[in-house]
Amino acid sequence: MTSTYSYNELADLTVKILTKLYGYSQKEAEITALVLVEADARGIPSHGVSRLDFYSSNLKGGFCKPGSKPEIVHETPCSLVVDGHDGVGPYISKWAVEKMLAKADGALAAFCSVRNSNHFGIAGYWAEQAALRGMVGLAFTNTRACGIPTYGRERLIGTNPIAAAIPEKYENGKISDMFLLDIATTTVAHGKIEVYDRRKKTMPNGWAVDETGKGTTDATAFEKLFYSNPRLGGHLFLGGEGEESGGHKGYGLGLLVELLCSGLSLGAGSMDTFKAGCGGGITHFFACFSLALFGRPQEIMAHIHSILQTIRNSEKAEGESRIFIHGEKEAEAKERALKNGVELDAATRDMLEKLKAKL
Amino acid sequence: MTSTYSYNELADLTVKILTKLYGYSQKEAEITALVLVEADARGIPSHGVSRLDFYSSNLKGGFCKPGSKPEIVHETPCSLVVDGHDGVGPYISKWAVEKMLAKADGALAAFCSVRNSNHFGIAGYWAEQAALRGMVGLAFTNTRACGIPTYGRERLIGTNPIAAAIPEKYENGKISDMFLLDIATTTVAHGKIEVYDRRKKTMPNGWAVDETGKGTTDATAFEKLFYSNPRLGGHLFLGGEGEESGGHKGYGLGLLVELLCSGLSLGAGSMDTFKAGCGGGITHFFACFSLALFGRPQEIMAHIHSILQTIRNSEKAEGESRIFIHGEKEAEAKERALKNGVELDAATRDMLEKLKAKL
Repeated sequence: MTSTYSYNELADLTVKILTKLYGYSQKEAEITALVLVEADARGIPSHGVSRLDFYSSNLKGGFCKPGSKPEIVHETPCSLVVDGHDGVGPYISKWAVEKMLAKADGALAAFCSVRNSNHFGIAGYWAEQAALRGMVGLAFTNTRACGIPTYGRERLIGTNPIAAAIPEKYENGKISDMFLLDIATTTVAHGKIEVYDRRKKTMPNGWAVDETGKGTTDATAFEKLFYSNPRLGGHLFLGGEGEESGGHKGYGLGLLVELLCSGLSLGAGSMDTFKAGCGGGITHFFACFSLALFGRPQEIMAHIHSILQTIRNSEKAEGESRIFIHGEKEAEAKERALKNGVELDAATRDMLEKLKAKL
Repeated sequence: MTSTYSYNELADLTVKILTKLYGYSQKEAEITALVLVEADARGIPSHGVSRLDFYSSNLKGGFCKPGSKPEIVHETPCSLVVDGHDGVGPYISKWAVEKMLAKADGALAAFCSVRNSNHFGIAGYWAEQAALRGMVGLAFTNTRACGIPTYGRERLIGTNPIAAAIPEKYENGKISDMFLLDIATTTVAHGKIEVYDRRKKTMPNGWAVDETGKGTTDATAFEKLFYSNPRLGGHLFLGGEGEESGGHKGYGLGLLVELLCSGLSLGAGSMDTFKAGCGGGITHFFACFSLALFGRPQEIMAHIHSILQTIRNSEKAEGESRIFIHGEKEAEAKERALKNGVELDAATRDMLEKLKAKL
């Protein structure tokens, strides 16, 4: 059973919960509600308002401190390094990304690394902000450590998503279409394993390893391990176990994200996030560069569109009816949500209604 | 049976073959020989001097025209777009990357897209050039189309590698260690499937699809298809078939590379490379940005080193003795090759000796 809220109703309710129950300022609450509701509207419920639970535990654990002001600790005409001082992730990210985009107005390219932040919502939202201005946008973040390096067995790296946005079409005065990739570098998000556990299903190979570092398909045993053993066993990266199907590649992409986020910001590695007595310690990396660096943006977008059209219109595998370009599913889900409302699952609705009753 | 050549002997011989038999200029031959021999020395024989065969067929097909001069077709203080005019890939890439690095000396970041080029050797070599100057380096290229979009069955995208280099240590006046990722975004390179065919072994799932777009593990049937059907069946991207283990993620990474290389340069998409009457049409994308954008490079490298050391020193999976950081295997192979010589397999040695006899 799902329940439906209008986009604005859900955003308003989330703002109220964050300001009145979580102690967020109005500005912190507004951007946080926006990225959460955007995720639900786009069909990414793992990053939607269901995260209010996680945000609450971050407050209780002292990892997130609403009211903390982000600070620029290093700056050049085309870069900035931000210390989030354990504040609210989406608020810090908005503050940082806006400053980076302002720099890119002049420099045509800009970079931003952030330390001592918290969960910033869907990575794609931040990459998209650059693409909406006619630029290529990149957004990476580390997360709580849950991923295992190839041939290892300790959780050391986060799900470390890669988001990249490239404008495809400009019409009626705005960017109307874009390529928008937003992927965890681990094979799957943790929520997928939880679903297999609840349904007592065997996981596919390549998702996870146990405490010895060997692949496991037992979702229930894995879930027990994940919450009882603080260090051993965890997610595999894209490509799975070992090197045969490229697990070392996914691990390399996760590590690249780690070095760009934590390395360049002098922030905590994923293995050092959420330690008692410290803030969440999450780090981000943002970059953007203008299509104008390479010629006339309209001409470049037309060419990008033609490449993507060739792929969209190519022959489908037997039994399949559509080849997706990244970002299409989410954009279409959002259109539906704006028309018919945002669907939440029963557990999220119950959590939300309980919070609403407390207001 | 392998044969061993000294690094310099192999490089000199390759230069001679390229100048005297292939019609390359001395400069075109030197950089081409360098990237080929580097690949063999680093233990990446798929991109080593065995490629002389492919380079020869590119000459015969009219795809590569030695002597063609690259041209800057668009330029800003931090970017350039190069038209390679169907010249020699490594020569064009060296020319373009040096110009980009010179721009980055001033701007601290620079970008370069290249169209109408040819095979440029190992992507990692080009990313490394930036890291040797204390910068983060990125190098991407498209290739002949061989990869299949998720839910598709037409070969439309190349193996589209991602190379990223980040300096880890500066000592004795130079960058001595770096993180160096260099990965095809397809699950495996074509050479791996050829090996399975020769040995009549069943391939793992997730490597390839047949002409209907369904996964296949029959390497021999796949090889026949690959060389008989000009369009259908091909490589899967990292993560394999469908979405269950993230195949849409690998496809997205391959497509990202495609849009950065072909899109930004207004060059051919992978699906339009190597067409009769045209040049190879290969496109590249290079980018670099200085660690100095984010603070003191020495401090940042020390932090990067500490993150990587934590991973190196972490507990290994049962039965495993080492966790690799990307680039280590190749750096160690090169050290061995410089000491003991570069090993070539029998087929490559025979090909090389035949060419040598013609000199």
